[in-house]
Amino acid sequence: MRDFSTDHRWLSINTATVRQQRGQDWPLLDILDACGQRGIRAVSPWRDQVAAAGLQATANKLQEHGIELSGYCRGGMFTYTDAASRQASRDDNRRALDEACTLHAPCLVLVVGGLPGALAGHAAHRDIAGAREQVNEGIAALLDDARERQMPLAIEPLHPMYAADRACINTLAQALDVCDALDPGRTGALGLAVDLYHVWWDPTLAVQIQRAGPDANGDGSRLLAFHVCDWLTPTTHLLEDRGMMGDGVIDIPHIRALVEAQGFAGYSEVEIFSRGNWWRQDGGQVLDTCIERHRRCV
Amino acid sequence: MRDFSTDHRWLSINTATVRQQRGQDWPLLDILDACGQRGIRAVSPWRDQVAAAGLQATANKLQEHGIELSGYCRGGMFTYTDAASRQASRDDNRRALDEACTLHAPCLVLVVGGLPGALAGHAAHRDIAGAREQVNEGIAALLDDARERQMPLAIEPLHPMYAADRACINTLAQALDVCDALDPGRTGALGLAVDLYHVWWDPTLAVQIQRAGPDANGDGSRLLAFHVCDWLTPTTHLLEDRGMMGDGVIDIPHIRALVEAQGFAGYSEVEIFSRGNWWRQDGGQVLDTCIERHRRCV
Repeated sequence: MRDFSTDHRWLSINTATVRQQRGQDWPLLDILDACGQRGIRAVSPWRDQVAAAGLQATANKLQEHGIELSGYCRGGMFTYTDAASRQASRDDNRRALDEACTLHAPCLVLVVGGLPGALAGHAAHRDIAGAREQVNEGIAALLDDARERQMPLAIEPLHPMYAADRACINTLAQALDVCDALDPGRTGALGLAVDLYHVWWDPTLAVQIQRAGPDANGDGSRLLAFHVCDWLTPTTHLLEDRGMMGDGVIDIPHIRALVEAQGFAGYSEVEIFSRGNWWRQDGGQVLDTCIERHRRCV
Repeated sequence: MRDFSTDHRWLSINTATVRQQRGQDWPLLDILDACGQRGIRAVSPWRDQVAAAGLQATANKLQEHGIELSGYCRGGMFTYTDAASRQASRDDNRRALDEACTLHAPCLVLVVGGLPGALAGHAAHRDIAGAREQVNEGIAALLDDARERQMPLAIEPLHPMYAADRACINTLAQALDVCDALDPGRTGALGLAVDLYHVWWDPTLAVQIQRAGPDANGDGSRLLAFHVCDWLTPTTHLLEDRGMMGDGVIDIPHIRALVEAQGFAGYSEVEIFSRGNWWRQDGGQVLDTCIERHRRCV
């Protein structure tokens, strides 16, 4: 396993981690300046932050600091209730792909969607199996667009507590089944974003990480992105109470070792939504804490 | 599938559903009176409620109303940090078995425990695989005591959001693996409590329910208990924001059909923890609502 203790060359910051500090949006271009000043070499920005900053301005700022992307957040939300919403999803996902290309992202991360309407509190139905079929269709269609653009798609299985409203792909096994069905040749066009917050609890974690890894020739790995934060006890909010690495119960080095044993050699991306703690602090201090914890706890 | 629409003979009330109404504990004996008055034929009481009411007084009250148990809540919490806490867990679980026998419960429900100390906010370690080994050991030891008393043990897989602090058995597949290891003969001594709140999201749900069902001769089912409530969108608290059947996104009749296709013919037990809504209402009205929803939404 790589030694992270002496530098932070493999640290990436998911920009949601510092998106709103002390009650105010921290503009993306300022976040990138703060990352550049600290020698942070990679980020994963969210589309709304990029839209607010401007796509080309974001690309220019990344180039100015020599910062690359560890992923682009996010495509997905494939579930729909009618032909119009299905088409709107597909169109929006194509735009996300184009933005990812402009920013030279290594992959577009997919949060696939739950029961349509549930995120707004009004689920259109209770048919999660049907939602999963729509997701499979949606990924299949987007995969054609992604192959054209040579932009890999990274399915992010979300924790089962988000099955209703955010993503009905909830385990690595389920995501890998989709990968195997849609990209049996393991071409690199379709893979996983492994976020420890979502998968740490899975009793089949080691088996599925191995399954995601490359074949005997070292080819065809599905491991496209690796996200870290921590699970707090107690967790006081389903979405916005993630912990900083080291503050919770996830054995991060153990899981990183599993992923690296499969040849993963990319960034470790910190993604923390924390309304009650980290979003209340100075953004620069949060970045400094991410660097320190990356060295000590990842 | 049985028709529940015309009566509530297969309704059971988990007494946590009405344990504290309008800020005050509702004493168990009063709950049992209220259930008896409504023709509710079964309950599943919690040990602390039974202890407060008195074990024999509870048994007498159950007999007075002709109410039986659909389960006894709960044994488990097998994880430990030292020999003393391990022994304390075993002793307490034996007492739970004895109480279950006195109350003529059909099974003792097991919530197996998470990382030791995590429920109090101070996890002793991050080794969830180790915790799972302790759980397997603990169930194996308790199974000897349970067989002596002819009291079946029902492992309740808890939602993955409780993996850290309440139960590190988090899927039906995992629970069935334990059953297969410890009771390969499917003797009836070890099985499952299937609570829809915990398992509804599982993409392998139908497969695992089938696996839990009986063999070709109709023998050896692992399905010992069936719990219902609903998953709300949004869910505002990890533990105490469960919904009444019909108010959320779980397709309850669909899953009940899967369970009954495997020969399950027992009670449908309502277990709702709801600090913000149902615990704030009059207990009798909550029971009336359970009856109405049982007929219409289960």
